[in-house]
Amino acid sequence: MSSAGFARLFNPRAIAVVGASGNPDRIGGQPVKVLQGTGYRGGIHPVNPKYPKVFGLPCFPDLASVPKPCDLAIIAVNAVLVPQMIRDCGAAGIPYAIIFSAGFREIGAPGVALEKEIKVAAHDAGVRFIGPNCIGTMNLIDRVYCGFGPGFADAGLKAGPVAFVSQSGGFAFSVVALAEAEGVGFNYIVSAGNETSITSLDLIADFIERDDTEIVVSYMEGISDGRRLRAIGRRALELGKPILVWKVGNTESGRAAAESHTASMTAGYALYRAAFAEGGFIEIADVHDLVDGVRAFSGRRLPRGPNLGVLTTSGGSGVLMVDAADRHGLKFPRLAPETVRAMKEIAPPNASLANPVDLTAQVTGNAEWVNRITRHVLADPNIDQLIVRYGSVQGAKGEEWASGLAALVTEAEKPVLVAWSRVPDRSERSVEVLERHRIPWLITPTRTADAAGMLYQFSRKRAALEQRCKRSGARVVASRNVPLPARARRLSEHQSKAVLAAYGIPVATDALIAVAGVARLKRAPMPFPVAVKIDSPDIPHKTEAGAVRLNVRNLAQLKRAARDVVAAAKQHAPKAALRGVLLSPMASGVEVIAGATNDRFFGPVVMFGLGGIFTELLRDVSYRFAPFDVETAHEMIRETRAWRLLAGYRGKPPLAVDALAEALARLSLLIADHAGRIAEIDINPLFVNETRVVAADALVVLPR
Amino acid sequence: MSSAGFARLFNPRAIAVVGASGNPDRIGGQPVKVLQGTGYRGGIHPVNPKYPKVFGLPCFPDLASVPKPCDLAIIAVNAVLVPQMIRDCGAAGIPYAIIFSAGFREIGAPGVALEKEIKVAAHDAGVRFIGPNCIGTMNLIDRVYCGFGPGFADAGLKAGPVAFVSQSGGFAFSVVALAEAEGVGFNYIVSAGNETSITSLDLIADFIERDDTEIVVSYMEGISDGRRLRAIGRRALELGKPILVWKVGNTESGRAAAESHTASMTAGYALYRAAFAEGGFIEIADVHDLVDGVRAFSGRRLPRGPNLGVLTTSGGSGVLMVDAADRHGLKFPRLAPETVRAMKEIAPPNASLANPVDLTAQVTGNAEWVNRITRHVLADPNIDQLIVRYGSVQGAKGEEWASGLAALVTEAEKPVLVAWSRVPDRSERSVEVLERHRIPWLITPTRTADAAGMLYQFSRKRAALEQRCKRSGARVVASRNVPLPARARRLSEHQSKAVLAAYGIPVATDALIAVAGVARLKRAPMPFPVAVKIDSPDIPHKTEAGAVRLNVRNLAQLKRAARDVVAAAKQHAPKAALRGVLLSPMASGVEVIAGATNDRFFGPVVMFGLGGIFTELLRDVSYRFAPFDVETAHEMIRETRAWRLLAGYRGKPPLAVDALAEALARLSLLIADHAGRIAEIDINPLFVNETRVVAADALVVLPR
Repeated sequence: MSSAGFARLFNPRAIAVVGASGNPDRIGGQPVKVLQGTGYRGGIHPVNPKYPKVFGLPCFPDLASVPKPCDLAIIAVNAVLVPQMIRDCGAAGIPYAIIFSAGFREIGAPGVALEKEIKVAAHDAGVRFIGPNCIGTMNLIDRVYCGFGPGFADAGLKAGPVAFVSQSGGFAFSVVALAEAEGVGFNYIVSAGNETSITSLDLIADFIERDDTEIVVSYMEGISDGRRLRAIGRRALELGKPILVWKVGNTESGRAAAESHTASMTAGYALYRAAFAEGGFIEIADVHDLVDGVRAFSGRRLPRGPNLGVLTTSGGSGVLMVDAADRHGLKFPRLAPETVRAMKEIAPPNASLANPVDLTAQVTGNAEWVNRITRHVLADPNIDQLIVRYGSVQGAKGEEWASGLAALVTEAEKPVLVAWSRVPDRSERSVEVLERHRIPWLITPTRTADAAGMLYQFSRKRAALEQRCKRSGARVVASRNVPLPARARRLSEHQSKAVLAAYGIPVATDALIAVAGVARLKRAPMPFPVAVKIDSPDIPHKTEAGAVRLNVRNLAQLKRAARDVVAAAKQHAPKAALRGVLLSPMASGVEVIAGATNDRFFGPVVMFGLGGIFTELLRDVSYRFAPFDVETAHEMIRETRAWRLLAGYRGKPPLAVDALAEALARLSLLIADHAGRIAEIDINPLFVNETRVVAADALVVLPR
Repeated sequence: MSSAGFARLFNPRAIAVVGASGNPDRIGGQPVKVLQGTGYRGGIHPVNPKYPKVFGLPCFPDLASVPKPCDLAIIAVNAVLVPQMIRDCGAAGIPYAIIFSAGFREIGAPGVALEKEIKVAAHDAGVRFIGPNCIGTMNLIDRVYCGFGPGFADAGLKAGPVAFVSQSGGFAFSVVALAEAEGVGFNYIVSAGNETSITSLDLIADFIERDDTEIVVSYMEGISDGRRLRAIGRRALELGKPILVWKVGNTESGRAAAESHTASMTAGYALYRAAFAEGGFIEIADVHDLVDGVRAFSGRRLPRGPNLGVLTTSGGSGVLMVDAADRHGLKFPRLAPETVRAMKEIAPPNASLANPVDLTAQVTGNAEWVNRITRHVLADPNIDQLIVRYGSVQGAKGEEWASGLAALVTEAEKPVLVAWSRVPDRSERSVEVLERHRIPWLITPTRTADAAGMLYQFSRKRAALEQRCKRSGARVVASRNVPLPARARRLSEHQSKAVLAAYGIPVATDALIAVAGVARLKRAPMPFPVAVKIDSPDIPHKTEAGAVRLNVRNLAQLKRAARDVVAAAKQHAPKAALRGVLLSPMASGVEVIAGATNDRFFGPVVMFGLGGIFTELLRDVSYRFAPFDVETAHEMIRETRAWRLLAGYRGKPPLAVDALAEALARLSLLIADHAGRIAEIDINPLFVNETRVVAADALVVLPR
């Protein structure tokens, strides 16, 4: 889809309103009336065989009669009539429709069939549409209001370089109203409805490519193409345009069908978060985040690193920014000695010249003084971005200060954010100067630090993408075949380990002994102590089945243990196929879990976290989409609290983190290379000691 | 202190301004000028031997010359002159002062001495004061502005029933300005400064007792009397007045001096949070929380339980409220069948009558319809509080709706919160109606659900206090003596366990054997396997010293292990007093940690959490101030993730949680009864199995 893809949809030369009415309370009446009052300069063609005129405009009996060219039909008729209207659009050469009508998927089975019908009709007719069951779209640049309801009542909404794609209709316009009250304007607003034809992702992908759009806001309940979400996230990073995503409906539902820990923990939101974390998304959670995000990115500058400088006239606000910045990984470096020296000569006597720099109330009313000091802090090589909070500067002094600051910012390349100590009157000259120079301003120290955090987050992800691209192609293991039995539902531990071994993931050197052969053993095939386990594809959770004996120390114990686990297995699952008794050396080290699943929406993904009971208890795990390289594996290890254990906890020597990272990278290649053939993999526990890693247990689940 | 304690301070009959000046840029000039313009009706008496008049007022050469009665002196002179001015206040019968002057504790050693001098002077003279190093106070009811700086420039600030005590001066007035922009007014505002005489806690304690104050806001960096903070929190619950506390400066600093895990993890903020959690505090983190908290509590109603009903016209907003409510422990119960039946008769056809109730946009413009349905939901017995979100209702319709809702709310006793879909114009009649009837209104679904969460939190804590009071006096063990050696710094494991045993906390049945006696042992004093450890008060961390051997299985191993741990101990700490070799039965179960510390500021406190390496790794611990009862111990167990392990994890039988709770309650009595004699206690690990708990290791640290 090209970036000009939806140009005619959002800025049509003419609009037909099918089901038009002279009653402004009806959904077919509202858009006609509204479009007449917003300044839209294209044609408006009501369509309804019942009326000769609607709101003074000639009303056409059908779409075939509408003058050409017409680029868009608004469809506001009973649901059962919609398929024919779509076909009529095609016949009349109208490429786009917006379907207000409800009564489709959202009402259950009869609606599902009807929705399928409009999908087929649109495909056959070459028509693409927004909806059904949506409240419409708005193009604020060209004043095209194609919608109904109170959200479209305000003809005076101001435009801004922000596109908004929402999966909630009514609430979207509440967000628009709340954001406008804080001075944030949008260019395109879309209520996506049931997304039968054009989806939210189609729209986001289109908007980020547009020159008139700097920021995209997405109010998201759920999408069905996680791979595309990831691709869009990557594109957003490449373009340097953030997607502020407000993801809702995140209650953990789990998946009834999942057998492995990995798949059961990888419920929907975890993968959304993984996609948001790697791509050009900034997660927001309320309107004020949206406002602050738009403000921050409107500055069109990103910091090169985490180092934040703060210049304030109130120590209290500095404390708050330090508290908040920590959550975003921002740092407060010391200022360079030359900066401190230069400041010392001009700063007021009681000023604190550490970072945050506190000039105190002594500089109140002396804007030039503040700016002279600001110049030094902004130039400091240790600082990647700067927050300036000059309390309570107003009127002419405010304008003088803002103009001086703007001159400094213009010379520099770093982001500068202004923290106001009050809610500024947006008609103030100082605000006008800041906005003209694209200096983002925010209220409250915490919100300002949060905004700085958003800029840093985006910048960090861009750099990470660049690094990944540079490293790309470096496979730690070549693609190879793996032994998967036909028609199996899952593999036994021994079979599962063979699959891992094919990709060079270290597994315990086990011995599989036929059930009947154990009693005849003359000596153990490996040194004691050993673990004795049943090996069966039908008993994935051996411990729960009582089919595991640990720390077995001699041959007599071994034979007894083997008898016990076989008996336990038979009692637990009488029909289970028993492939034998598996003997494993006892492993030790820190227990971690590494897992992989081939998600229906997002594709192959790898999970890592602390093992044993702590996996599910803590849910302290990290995710990466597969495949990935060893560096990425290191990142995912460092994201979890397991990292502290692995890095040498309380004076202990560091463990084999390099080997662990390599195993994760190999696992990612295994699931990616065989995504169609493997559904889930658990390596639990994977032991990490000082010299190596070893998979002590494994489970491979095949697709149904 | 009585509730009338500070009446003359905040509403003085006359004010002397010491160091008065005719220059409004000077801190002695500003208050004279400001007080003349705010409507203050008491006397203003400039004091300065240099001037005959200041801003047209007669200027007195000294405090002795000021007309009586005068209740307050503002002191704005050089720091070195302040002690004499305080003495002059006392001689002139002026009971209160506000000291703007800086140059005390905040500048280091010379200032510390001077600050001590004014403290003594004030004590001797019978004067109490705010400051020094503060920017002043404001009483907006009586229009008494006693301060300097831009915060005092707005004579038109509106009053409201909220008192604000701030440990940051300049930032406090930024908060006031930001909150006022959202319509929240204060009655008293105090910049507390160095708190040499009157402290933040004195002020909060005073304000919550005042009839004109419904809510107290505290901007807190740190206080030095944790016990009093707790007492104030309790009083706030009793009075039903919340203290919205904005705690800043919470970076974890740790305590260099602590020896036990418990004490080292119990850094400042953890205990603040424990005090906030038990008392009438609501933690806030930014200005919008403050605004929402004030709005919510201005309704003067608390829910009886966690059950939230939501009535909305937008499904999207319902989804957001469900997401947010979960964080606060709020529930969305099903509505009663009779409610659903009654709604069915009158609700629009496509409405969703589950909770949240979504009336859809079909009810737009029909206020009476919405209120008829609201009546049923509000009356539902399953609902403790209700949020109503009626999107985009404005003008006359808005007033009709608000009046109808007000009538329903007046009849009911439950809290009702209104969620606006836009920022309402505060001059709207609907807003006026809501505010007159004390119906809190908020913007955005998330902020509204958060506000409902604050009400529930306060209500829950009131109920918990009531329960605690009913149960009070039920000691699980009587106070008794514990064996503490004189002049010791800490106790050995064996000695520590004896202390625990004195309070009935189950400890392992150990055997202490003299170092010289081990070699002569003919048989072990307990069945194998055993743990062999050094017993020394000088080696608190035996594992790190290499002085522990686990799973020792026979007498020969025991003797070797004993030799090894003695050798390791001597190498680790050559001067350590070795009390012997301690033999313990090997324990098993879930490892938890129970600890206690006698905090300098907050007093005795008990910590509980997962044991082993997870204690410090996860920091997933809960705290309660000691002493407490078994029920409270159960609460603190349930607050941690250890609870899931203890309650029967993954099909395992539940463990001895009752015994654990009793051990915690006994530990709380031990530290409380002997707070002056014991500094820290670690029980780590405490094993919990299916039948009992047992302390496998213990450390008691005595006060320095």
